[in-house]
Formats: sequence, structure tokens, C-alpha cells
Amino acid sequence: MKKLLNDPADVVAEALAGMAAAHPDRLRVDLEHRLVLRVGGPVRGKVAVVSGGGSGHEPLHAGYVGLGMLDAACCGEVFTSPVPDQVVAATRATDGGAGVLHVVKNYTGDLLNFEMAAEIVAAGVDGPPVELAHVITDDDVAVEDSTWTIGRRGVGVTVLLEKIVGAAAEEGWPLDRCHALAERVNRQGRSMGMALTSCTVPAAGRPTFELGEDEMELGVGIHGEAGRATVPVAPAREVAASLVSAVRSDLGLRRGETVLALVNGLGGTPLLELYVMAHEVHRLLAGAGVGVARSLVGNYVTSLEMAGCSVTLLRADEELLRLYDAPVNTPGLRWGV
Amino acid sequence: MKKLLNDPADVVAEALAGMAAAHPDRLRVDLEHRLVLRVGGPVRGKVAVVSGGGSGHEPLHAGYVGLGMLDAACCGEVFTSPVPDQVVAATRATDGGAGVLHVVKNYTGDLLNFEMAAEIVAAGVDGPPVELAHVITDDDVAVEDSTWTIGRRGVGVTVLLEKIVGAAAEEGWPLDRCHALAERVNRQGRSMGMALTSCTVPAAGRPTFELGEDEMELGVGIHGEAGRATVPVAPAREVAASLVSAVRSDLGLRRGETVLALVNGLGGTPLLELYVMAHEVHRLLAGAGVGVARSLVGNYVTSLEMAGCSVTLLRADEELLRLYDAPVNTPGLRWGV
Repeated sequence: MKKLLNDPADVVAEALAGMAAAHPDRLRVDLEHRLVLRVGGPVRGKVAVVSGGGSGHEPLHAGYVGLGMLDAACCGEVFTSPVPDQVVAATRATDGGAGVLHVVKNYTGDLLNFEMAAEIVAAGVDGPPVELAHVITDDDVAVEDSTWTIGRRGVGVTVLLEKIVGAAAEEGWPLDRCHALAERVNRQGRSMGMALTSCTVPAAGRPTFELGEDEMELGVGIHGEAGRATVPVAPAREVAASLVSAVRSDLGLRRGETVLALVNGLGGTPLLELYVMAHEVHRLLAGAGVGVARSLVGNYVTSLEMAGCSVTLLRADEELLRLYDAPVNTPGLRWGV
Repeated sequence: MKKLLNDPADVVAEALAGMAAAHPDRLRVDLEHRLVLRVGGPVRGKVAVVSGGGSGHEPLHAGYVGLGMLDAACCGEVFTSPVPDQVVAATRATDGGAGVLHVVKNYTGDLLNFEMAAEIVAAGVDGPPVELAHVITDDDVAVEDSTWTIGRRGVGVTVLLEKIVGAAAEEGWPLDRCHALAERVNRQGRSMGMALTSCTVPAAGRPTFELGEDEMELGVGIHGEAGRATVPVAPAREVAASLVSAVRSDLGLRRGETVLALVNGLGGTPLLELYVMAHEVHRLLAGAGVGVARSLVGNYVTSLEMAGCSVTLLRADEELLRLYDAPVNTPGLRWGV
């Protein structure tokens, strides 16, 4: 295993310390609870948007903390859910009196731990009651059920949801409307990914899964979970066709509709190749009569250094586009400020 | 070779087409000349800032085209200089009457081809005279002379220079002042990098260089050129100490000074590890009494999918920080707009 780290056991704590050092204008870190918190929070009267999950998917979620997106991220060990105490601490630390929305990717451990945290907060033993809601993202069309998931996995839509709902919260939307919006974004978006190589979890020290020199994994999960099939490596245009057609048909996209498109790298694929993929994705959508209103190309939800990519399409409308375009100031996404 | 592409010969053209499709609000592409051009240019009365070089270092340079940074990028084949015709076309396409500044990384091929282009434009055979100036970046302290370079290589400072000088040009600085500023930024900045793995140029199909399972290359160039030494893999804190001390001593940084710091990934290293490195870099600078006024952590000058990183320090002052903070709207760097 060749990695830029010290003791593998310290990688998350040291990375969080690095984030705090690099971005003191936008975030601060609670190292005890492994939380990344928006500077200046809690924001009085604003719904707090809190997410979290295993580390190793950066910039998701810690890199999306800041104005217009998340109020806090709970960082688990690499590919391991955060524990309930972390979520409780994040919820308490961010509540500004208007309630807290938990954004949870659909993995069994994340669900259980966020749910347990919600129960602890609701019981009110550790502090005053907090109005809570949660949304579960499950946009990955590749498989039903998977290694760590009952139902579909939460992947790329999570980024777009955090951006859009974060903007609504910033505008002062109440918790019920933020929650309904979050559910709507999740319903309107779908994703699928593929891998050319595995990744290596630092604590494990060896590749998560095996792929032959001429093989790729179609429908891979963001922890290297098995997808639809291990198939021979194919040209970018065929890979793009597989991903786009799976997402498009599941979403029921029709000619004349418009989407936000995310061509996402899994960490180890150069931007040059992601733009080759973006070219194919745009060409395929144009051929299907689907317009692309906004486009993101880059590493937004990763699997450490895995080589591969995913395609996320989110059915757009005026409200979602307006909120997507609203100012955001996080290490991972920034514009308008 | 496992890559997301079609015919390796088409990778640059297809990636540029992908950029045009994904970012029509910010840039347009001249596929004939392999140029990425700022939308709405040439800007009348503004100095145009034009750069370029081999592809494979994305987002550098094509991803830095847009308001507040570059007016055009000339994209060569992967790790191959753009030809003079491209530079001439970019110069002609961006001149708004206030002259054009060429930003050239110090590689022999780039220097020759930018120089030849300048001579063609100066001769005025193909159009009216254009006021021209150029800056050569040579910030890599690792080695004197290298595979494709006489003198030091141009690396991470190029990004900061394009940002800072792009802002000055946007403010209406005349060519001579933009040029002097660019020379000053280059003088005030230094970099050094290291690699854990090689990269593979698509047209070659095999790794550029060999590294043993327990080896890293200290002082590597952004095309995989040999550095100072092939040494055993070391913990992040030792890697950071090597890079920071080399850069700091070459720059003559003293206690009480302030820098802009770039902890740059070479393409294949996860953000989690880059933040571990950022932690070490900040810690080392704090220990040396050097303040960090601004910090960038991520993939800004890459070598395809090479795993590794580089550290760039730029001695800061009020003017540079003000220009660095000015609005920028490119696919690779964006804030304030």
C-alpha cells in the first residue's frame, strides 16, 4: 500500500486537522467528535443541514460544510458509519432553533446510527428538544440491495441535494419545506457508476476487491461493492452509453426535458478522462432530446483512489436551478461568494 | 492500460469537446487549433493572458480559462508542447488592443514554440501588430536542468500566477505592469513534488517510469521526470518535511513572513491524503513562524493519474492577496462570482 499518511489509524483525524488549518474562514473542526462545523454557527433561525457518513468519499461530506450547504458533517472512519454520539453532537452544535435536517445516504449502518441519534435527541435527556427531520438518498440504479444496503445506495444525488437544500435553508425555508424539497430532489435524481480499479482502505492495506487487467465493474458502489456485472473494459462511448441509458430509463426522462448533470470521478481518474466522458454524456443526452441546464465535471463523491466514474442526472425545474445557482462557499463547491 | 477513453489519439480533442459542452457559460473551444477561449472575448482594452502547454495537467491550463484568469489556453497533445500555430491563433483571438501576455512553463519545447509564435505575430504577416510580453515560470526547486528543461521546471506557481495576473488584467492594468507583476510572482514562489506511482500517457500505453513497491520519487516533475532521488516510501510527516524544507530554504523564508500555500495532488491521490499532507505542511510552517494567509488543497496541476503531491509556497503581500481574492470564474477555480 502506497499512501501519503502516517499511522493509518490517524488518517481521518489528521485529515480533519488539515481541513481546519486550510479553511479557517469557512469551517472549524471538533476533533473529539470528528465533526466539521460551519464557522459562525449555529445560525439563529435557520434550519441546520447535517450530513455524514464514512470518510474516504471526499469532498463529500466534510468538504461541503459552509455557507449555502451543510452546517455540519459527521466523519466516520474510512468507509465506516459515524456513531450516534457524533450525530447527536452535530445536531446539538448546529441547531439554531429552526430544527435540523439529517441527510443520510442509504447504507444500513448510517441509517441505524442517524436514527439512534434522532431518538437520543428526541428523548431530550441531553438537552432541550430539537425539531428533526431526515431524508435518505437512494439514487444508485445499479442494484437493488447490496453489501451494506437494503434497497438502493445513496451516491451522487447527495451532493446536488446538499447544495439545493442548503440554499433553501440559507433562504430561511422552514424545516417541513426543506424536508419536502430534499425528498423531491432525491426522487428526481438517479446515478450509476463504474470502476476500472479497486481502492485500498488504509487500515486494510490491500485492495477492497479484485479486477482483472481487462475488466471493469459496471454499477460499482462507492465502497467497491459489487455492481451489475464485471465486464471487459470498453471504450468511453460504450461506458457512457451504459450509464446514461440505465439512469435515463430509470428516471423516465423524456425528449424535451432538462437535467442537471454530474460526471463524477471516483478519485483516481484524471480530469482529462472525465471530460472525455462528459463529451459522451452530453452527446447521448442531446441525441435523446434531453437538455443539460447545468453540468459538474470532477471528483465530487469519491472512493479514495478508485479509478472510474459515475453519472448523475437530476430532473431540473426553475426552482431547483435557482437554488442550485445560489451562493455557496465550501472547500468542495464555491460560487457567488 | 485502463482508461476512460476511445481512440487514444482523440483524447485531447474529445476532452476539449467535453469542456465546451459542460461549461458553455464560461468558455468555448476552437477544435481546429485546440484552443480553449473565454466566452465573450476578446475583451476590448484588456490585456489578454494566454497560456498553454502539454495536456494531462488538468485543470491547468484549459480549466483556468474564464473571467479573472486566462483568456485562452493552447492545448498540446498529452505531455507535448502546443505548436506555434496554436499560440498565434490564441494570440490573435484574444487581443483586445491592450496586448497579450504569454505565460510559459519552463520546458524547452514550450519556450521554443511560444517564442516562434511571438516572432510570427511580431512580423505582422498574418495580421496587425500585437503588443506582446511573456513570463517563464520556473519554480520547481527539485533539480537544475531535467529531461525536457534547461534550468528549473515550471509547476505549481503557474496556477497562482495565472490567478493573480489574471485579476490584474481584469482590473485594467497595462501590459508592462501585468508583465512585471508576473515576473514578481514567479520570483516569490517555489515548489517541489513527489510521486508514489507513475502515470501512463494514453498514446504510450505503459507507465512513464518505474518505481518499486516500496519506493517514491522525491522531486518528481509533472511528466514523471526524475527528481532528486528515488527513496524508500516514508510517512506523510517526513515527506512534508522534505518538501517544505526544500521550498522554504530556497525561498529564504524567514520567521514572521506570510505565504499562500498550495498542497497540490498529482491526480491519483485522494483528497483525504492531501489533507493529511496539508496538516503537516501547516504544522511545519507554524513551527517555522511562517503564517499561511491563503491555502489551496486539491488537484490543481496534475500528471494524469500519478499518485503524489507537490507543495508550493508563494511569499505573500497585500497586493498579491488582494488580487488572489478577486473574483474568478473558471471550471478549475471559482469564487466571488
